[in-house]
Amino acid sequence: MIGFERIKEIAIETPSKIILLVMDGLGGLPDPRSGKTELETASTPNLDQLAARSICGLHDPVSPGITPGSGPAHLALFGYDPLVYDIGRGVLETLGIDFDLQEKDLAARGNFCTVDEKGLVVDRRAGRIPTDRSSELCQLLNKIHLDGVQLFVNPVREHRFSVVFRGDDLSAELTESDPQQVGLAPMTIEALSPQAERTARMVNEFVEKAKATLAKSRPANMVLLRGFSKYPNLPEMGEVYRLNPAAIATYPMYRGLAKLVGMKILPTGEGIEAEFATLRQHYEEHDFFYVHVKRTDSAGEDGNFEAKVKAIEEVDAHLPQLMGLAPDVLIITGDHSTPAVLGAHSWHPVPVLLYSRWCRPDRLGEFSERACRSGSLGRLPAVEIMPLAMAYARKLNKFGA
Amino acid sequence: MIGFERIKEIAIETPSKIILLVMDGLGGLPDPRSGKTELETASTPNLDQLAARSICGLHDPVSPGITPGSGPAHLALFGYDPLVYDIGRGVLETLGIDFDLQEKDLAARGNFCTVDEKGLVVDRRAGRIPTDRSSELCQLLNKIHLDGVQLFVNPVREHRFSVVFRGDDLSAELTESDPQQVGLAPMTIEALSPQAERTARMVNEFVEKAKATLAKSRPANMVLLRGFSKYPNLPEMGEVYRLNPAAIATYPMYRGLAKLVGMKILPTGEGIEAEFATLRQHYEEHDFFYVHVKRTDSAGEDGNFEAKVKAIEEVDAHLPQLMGLAPDVLIITGDHSTPAVLGAHSWHPVPVLLYSRWCRPDRLGEFSERACRSGSLGRLPAVEIMPLAMAYARKLNKFGA
Repeated sequence: MIGFERIKEIAIETPSKIILLVMDGLGGLPDPRSGKTELETASTPNLDQLAARSICGLHDPVSPGITPGSGPAHLALFGYDPLVYDIGRGVLETLGIDFDLQEKDLAARGNFCTVDEKGLVVDRRAGRIPTDRSSELCQLLNKIHLDGVQLFVNPVREHRFSVVFRGDDLSAELTESDPQQVGLAPMTIEALSPQAERTARMVNEFVEKAKATLAKSRPANMVLLRGFSKYPNLPEMGEVYRLNPAAIATYPMYRGLAKLVGMKILPTGEGIEAEFATLRQHYEEHDFFYVHVKRTDSAGEDGNFEAKVKAIEEVDAHLPQLMGLAPDVLIITGDHSTPAVLGAHSWHPVPVLLYSRWCRPDRLGEFSERACRSGSLGRLPAVEIMPLAMAYARKLNKFGA
Repeated sequence: MIGFERIKEIAIETPSKIILLVMDGLGGLPDPRSGKTELETASTPNLDQLAARSICGLHDPVSPGITPGSGPAHLALFGYDPLVYDIGRGVLETLGIDFDLQEKDLAARGNFCTVDEKGLVVDRRAGRIPTDRSSELCQLLNKIHLDGVQLFVNPVREHRFSVVFRGDDLSAELTESDPQQVGLAPMTIEALSPQAERTARMVNEFVEKAKATLAKSRPANMVLLRGFSKYPNLPEMGEVYRLNPAAIATYPMYRGLAKLVGMKILPTGEGIEAEFATLRQHYEEHDFFYVHVKRTDSAGEDGNFEAKVKAIEEVDAHLPQLMGLAPDVLIITGDHSTPAVLGAHSWHPVPVLLYSRWCRPDRLGEFSERACRSGSLGRLPAVEIMPLAMAYARKLNKFGA
């Protein structure tokens, strides 16, 4: 793979436009009854027609066999090697709520949960309390005093919140407190290095004080903390690719990811229709657009094969709007697979389609896992998609004499 | 990819013979009228027949999306990772004229150009003056005196020449003087590091004296210098692969590249017929032959679809001569794509065919970008072709017990 140093040397600014449409968790597995995946089941006349004029393939988000979280999977699509750039969940959640994270901050992802009289977790998500209720509780937690540390507790969505500790010499080398199953007590957070011991004590103090603060607010009467992490200084896409990139995503974490690589976040409404409208509205202002569709993944995670099929069909129905913008390069793919039959992210390679007038069209009959197998992109690491997008948009100079 | 250290351990000398036939810029793009690439348009009965008995695929010269210069593209075909071995244009041009470059030499590629009374470039190629005239001017430039530095100015072809500065502690960390467009003055060469400052002064002194020397020889009344570089010490193919390799190429730069990796340069006439005759003549003396066909690339660069089709057809017509030699391995490919519709090198993957009696034949119907897509070599980095050639020639021992 060509590294960022080399890409920087050959990347050039041009007026051409790239759209990266990510249908989260797109890749699937066959329904045992029909033998067809979600994408193969969906009626997608527009995607199929586009596939005939595009080049296609299957990508491995991180490496063959690796099931990625959303963080590494997206970084790879943005051209950042996820084995090099490692980002904590705490940072992602926090960036997703437009919090101005600073270099000395330590961020964690919090869950409100329910514990019984013995202090054992009975519901790791506190019955998915509504975000409004979560906001009230965050305000209470914000009043906790910790010596020498400023505290920022902010709601994310439902039972999920972000907590940021701002202070000197905080370390992210900490274990998590979430026991990952009910019937156990939240775990004490431990330092993974001597430098982190002071931080571990401070975080445990926060958890104790939170427990006291929430004692009477059942179901949300305790917190679980995970994904301790600090701000990673990633090179920005503007700097690496000389792009002026923008992101359209309805879900906080994906906006957080986009912000991390220097994309401008475009405010948008919920749903594909609204997202595509946002794209049209800002089309002249940027040369790279990342558009994120969440529902394919949510349906997959819920094990709802039919809902995933419908989400794909909805994207297909709106595709002519994208094509109407006449992008120089349009990439349609997923960040990873979320087969409904597994009800979870998986390691299966992900269909990818790249349309450009400079393609040698593969002339595939459809856009599907099966058809993509014979596409000319072959099976490729996700991190190679971005250089291809740049090339097909004619934004890369020649390498070497 | 397996590295040179491992290859060295398992490479063995055998009488088997490998021919690497490089049709420069072979890969193409469809003509919008026919939907067919140059290779798909060309009538190539011999290549098509051979493809049926071979294994095929598409290679990425450097990395997906990267448009390579001839240097990195060829190094990759010779099995040298072009992201590791970086070679300057000055060195390439200089090696291509059989100049005996030494370690302390600093080489640059020169162009004779035309400047007007104000010193602005009006023709970057001085009307492509004939090589004979260029030779006379090089002799004049050779008389320039520079303190402590020996000077070697030699004609390459038409307006192009090589200049070698031989002296102690010369640095290649210099900017170029070619403004890349007409209407501007040649640029002062600048040091990119403090160590290069003395060299920059010396090279600028050469340029000034060259201007004075050429003042009355319009159109070639000035020089432009680019690609400052020093001799890269590449491991030789004989050492890495235990081969005794030879190169047949009509164009200086490709001979230069071959020399750099330790190939013997076989003198040859112009044209495919002459090159193949040279191959026959020396067939017993070597076990690896690199044969370079330039016309496919020149036609592509000229945007001449038809001429590229004809060049491919000419190679096809002569193919039985190669097959008559009964090589153990024959590889036919390009170093990169040069689609006539782009009129330039491009990033598109390149068709590759490997014939050997030890293949599992792909039984493709033809040799084309489209057919190669379904070949068993899949889509592979160019740098992996050489280990495959070695394997199919049975020149590699087992790795590990």
